[in-house]
Amino acid sequence: MQSRYPAIQLTTNSQDLFADPKIDAIATPVSTHYDLALAALQAGKHVLVEKPMTVSSEQAMRLIDEAQKRNLVLMVDHTFVYTGAVRKMQELVATKAIGDVYYYDSVRVNLGLFQHDVNVIWDLAVHDLSIMDYVLPSKPYAVSATGMSHVSSEPENIAYLTLFFDNNLIAHIHVNWLAPVKVRRTMLGGSQKMVCYDDLEPSEKIRVYDKGITVNGSPENVYQMLVGYRTGDMWSPKLDMTEALQTEALHFIDCIRQGHRPITDGEAGLRVVRILEAATQSIKQQGRLVELDLAKVAV
Amino acid sequence: MQSRYPAIQLTTNSQDLFADPKIDAIATPVSTHYDLALAALQAGKHVLVEKPMTVSSEQAMRLIDEAQKRNLVLMVDHTFVYTGAVRKMQELVATKAIGDVYYYDSVRVNLGLFQHDVNVIWDLAVHDLSIMDYVLPSKPYAVSATGMSHVSSEPENIAYLTLFFDNNLIAHIHVNWLAPVKVRRTMLGGSQKMVCYDDLEPSEKIRVYDKGITVNGSPENVYQMLVGYRTGDMWSPKLDMTEALQTEALHFIDCIRQGHRPITDGEAGLRVVRILEAATQSIKQQGRLVELDLAKVAV
Amino acid sequence: MQSRYPAIQLTTNSQDLFADPKIDAIATPVSTHYDLALAALQAGKHVLVEKPMTVSSEQAMRLIDEAQKRNLVLMVDHTFVYTGAVRKMQELVATKAIGDVYYYDSVRVNLGLFQHDVNVIWDLAVHDLSIMDYVLPSKPYAVSATGMSHVSSEPENIAYLTLFFDNNLIAHIHVNWLAPVKVRRTMLGGSQKMVCYDDLEPSEKIRVYDKGITVNGSPENVYQMLVGYRTGDMWSPKLDMTEALQTEALHFIDCIRQGHRPITDGEAGLRVVRILEAATQSIKQQGRLVELDLAKVAV
Amino acid sequence: MQSRYPAIQLTTNSQDLFADPKIDAIATPVSTHYDLALAALQAGKHVLVEKPMTVSSEQAMRLIDEAQKRNLVLMVDHTFVYTGAVRKMQELVATKAIGDVYYYDSVRVNLGLFQHDVNVIWDLAVHDLSIMDYVLPSKPYAVSATGMSHVSSEPENIAYLTLFFDNNLIAHIHVNWLAPVKVRRTMLGGSQKMVCYDDLEPSEKIRVYDKGITVNGSPENVYQMLVGYRTGDMWSPKLDMTEALQTEALHFIDCIRQGHRPITDGEAGLRVVRILEAATQSIKQQGRLVELDLAKVAV
Repeated sequence: MQSRYPAIQLTTNSQDLFADPKIDAIATPVSTHYDLALAALQAGKHVLVEKPMTVSSEQAMRLIDEAQKRNLVLMVDHTFVYTGAVRKMQELVATKAIGDVYYYDSVRVNLGLFQHDVNVIWDLAVHDLSIMDYVLPSKPYAVSATGMSHVSSEPENIAYLTLFFDNNLIAHIHVNWLAPVKVRRTMLGGSQKMVCYDDLEPSEKIRVYDKGITVNGSPENVYQMLVGYRTGDMWSPKLDMTEALQTEALHFIDCIRQGHRPITDGEAGLRVVRILEAATQSIKQQGRLVELDLAKVAV
Repeated sequence: MQSRYPAIQLTTNSQDLFADPKIDAIATPVSTHYDLALAALQAGKHVLVEKPMTVSSEQAMRLIDEAQKRNLVLMVDHTFVYTGAVRKMQELVATKAIGDVYYYDSVRVNLGLFQHDVNVIWDLAVHDLSIMDYVLPSKPYAVSATGMSHVSSEPENIAYLTLFFDNNLIAHIHVNWLAPVKVRRTMLGGSQKMVCYDDLEPSEKIRVYDKGITVNGSPENVYQMLVGYRTGDMWSPKLDMTEALQTEALHFIDCIRQGHRPITDGEAGLRVVRILEAATQSIKQQGRLVELDLAKVAV
Repeated sequence: MQSRYPAIQLTTNSQDLFADPKIDAIATPVSTHYDLALAALQAGKHVLVEKPMTVSSEQAMRLIDEAQKRNLVLMVDHTFVYTGAVRKMQELVATKAIGDVYYYDSVRVNLGLFQHDVNVIWDLAVHDLSIMDYVLPSKPYAVSATGMSHVSSEPENIAYLTLFFDNNLIAHIHVNWLAPVKVRRTMLGGSQKMVCYDDLEPSEKIRVYDKGITVNGSPENVYQMLVGYRTGDMWSPKLDMTEALQTEALHFIDCIRQGHRPITDGEAGLRVVRILEAATQSIKQQGRLVELDLAKVAV
Repeated sequence: MQSRYPAIQLTTNSQDLFADPKIDAIATPVSTHYDLALAALQAGKHVLVEKPMTVSSEQAMRLIDEAQKRNLVLMVDHTFVYTGAVRKMQELVATKAIGDVYYYDSVRVNLGLFQHDVNVIWDLAVHDLSIMDYVLPSKPYAVSATGMSHVSSEPENIAYLTLFFDNNLIAHIHVNWLAPVKVRRTMLGGSQKMVCYDDLEPSEKIRVYDKGITVNGSPENVYQMLVGYRTGDMWSPKLDMTEALQTEALHFIDCIRQGHRPITDGEAGLRVVRILEAATQSIKQQGRLVELDLAKVAV
């Protein structure tokens, strides 16, 4: 590293980073999040930690405790939550513009960097889980996941998660480090409208389709057409194009100054980690349903 | 029906159809396939039955038996198997051009006709199962599936199937009658090359990517990059554009004349029905793994 | 032809076609339109003639005269005018929803059938000219066109037309029989909104962009930003999906019954032919401006 | 500017920039290129000037003279020439892989920054002219151009250029600052193959189509099909992804060190400026053909 970037200063001691007043932020692997965030909180600092927050829910709960005890802001960097596209989806759900939510379905695949300490769901599905935590009207009660590794003794590089919610809401996440093309597409189906969110579109990331089904007639006669289509206009709303990181950083500062709880607080980070843990467990058992108890959070 | 199409002749007796020499083929709902195909076989006729072959594996086995006993051709209309695109995929797998097969991943969604007698996997996943039966080098040993219905007392309109194979091969099928946009895209990942099959592309349905990973180095040192990318040319081969139904009909006639076994014979139809049964059972149990015993076929 | 389609009856005498009461319509090469349409009018029949109406404006005027003298309906098959997409564009212009029209810009290219009797503008640009005749608020006063033939002694297979209108409206048509991909895309720029019409899109053929420029400030100071962007929502209206030919045929019948003048009457056909003639002349002179006198029509 | 970027130092004297050893490069409007480049050459410095090189061919010739007299490298920043995509196109033409070149056709439109001192061809068509100067086997002999301004007393914001070459080669450039969508697509048609270059594609910018026409039969019989299609595979070669500016800067340094003439030397810059001048003149005369004399260069 020194030979490649001769101008930079190297250290093997993380305390040097904390001690240096010119350093505002550090980026480190997931496995180090807990120790470094804990050290920062114990030093009386507000913390904005990258996602996934920690490698276990125990660690996440411990950080939440520590921040609460010290009255410090603990925020998790669920970056997508601060994009114009995801905020627009949240608004469409919260205002009931799309009606009852039927499903959330995301494909997030590409030829990606194989990681050694976490599998593909900790790397990619974490984005969808944090988006869902913000956008959907309720929390999942169970997960069934499958996956596979194609490199010997390495973590899974392809995985599929189904999340179950009350009221017939279902979510599915599809992640893959070994896909020939890059896809970043989420469909959000509702009783009134359906949303397609394509993050690779340069300008029209969100498309709202006035499409759906209408249910008519008596269920006794199966040969009578009960379920009809409805198709109408498509609409792509203008999105706030502010850089997500800027919105997020301002929110962090604002939470510190005003004593507010961040949108993506420690509990949000914990819920995402719990689902990642449960999904990893389900993958090992080839799709066995693993229940989630997301109401029970820290303390 | 009479008032809408006054020129056509109506009947409520299927025997009238068999008796009429001007009628070469009939199209009927899945639930009637068994009775009508059995009647035809018993009348000494060769049968080409639409997919899915029957509503149960018992019925499928019974038809296979009947055809075998009478030395008649029994062929299942797995139409996609007779397209230039699927035949090219099969060739790429069979010649080892893509190397070892890692995964088959298909998304088949649109705003579709809700059916009352079968769920979305019997309507849409059946296409992928028949393609996989033809293209992949082995048969799956188990399935885990999830799904949901959004219309009260109607079958599932959204479903996700994971199929497990030996040698780390995994397959996933994603079907939905309630999607705002139409997607028909299959990715086939191999150790040497990856294929993207987009059936909505007017001319370049098959794209072959010379992309993948290379595994190097010692697994002891996780900070040393073990897994590298490889990216090369993309290539879209010219496909045979003959109408699938024409190729299929000629194959049926040829099998009758030459006494050959069809590519999509009764056993292929039975294997697909078995997976559909097992997946339906898995959906009811929210992803529980259901084993398949596809080696055990009729008789 | 007889050997390929043994069931059909052949004739070399066009009168046999007129005499046969089972024949409702005939399709013939452009060069025959005049003689056959004239014969039909002289036989007292209403005429719907394919586009381009004739190979010369003299012939077109002669047909208009004949129809007028005999009080018969003469309609030209400008098919696109009867599609939901083009009717929506016309509505957006006529209601001033897009503001003042700045430009009409069309790309219509593919690997197409080389014709021997007409060049590519008579085959492809005729579509855009008929759409423009219906959609735009005024008629062009001059044309400058360029083109090239790549097959010895054959007509031009690639061509570019610029049409000039009053009030800074400009139109451009880009046609090519020798393109590797098929493109059918028209942009319609207005002072308030801009429209993109992509005929290859299966469902969202028309997209309306709330985008444009705002002009502010004093023109004296060029370093002060005068022209700003404006970007807003995009909207894709639901279109009438009725088959164009059905709408057109019903309109023809309606004109006959009610004595109405068709939307695409002989004068519309003549205007299109005049532009085709002028553009062909301009191509021969490598872009020289050729004036059009479209107000002067038949009689 | 000072209030927006308080940390930077401002000056109104360009000599301060030349005098400051920390400044390696400056970016200034087109109208200043001549004076600043001339001053730099006269100060004995090698010059890499942005495109378009100057606002007139007289200025361009004067710079070429000055550089030659002083034995300095004068290079023009035709950036696209240093991209992997354009270098691949050049290779496909130079090796005759696409056969004889029939046409170069480019669409380069978007909602763009309106400039006050130059029209849209000096801003956007300059890219295509510099690419063509590098890729095509010969130089154009004449240009016909049309265009329009939609903002009072401002330069043209939409323009169309046709360039004529010997041997039936034709080129067309289509530029627009007022388009609702961004398009950057060039088609290059040849007798053996056709190339589609889409600069907005993230990875497959160049696609080579094994498509074309075959000419058979005798030209006497126009009803006999003379011209047939040929369609084969499509192929998208892997491109060198090195940043163009890096390749370009290294080439500039190499030319200085080795005394080589740059690929995009002053003469290339002059040829592009000459076409821009001629096209601007043609636009004012609504498409009148303006001859180019590109062989006659400086000195």
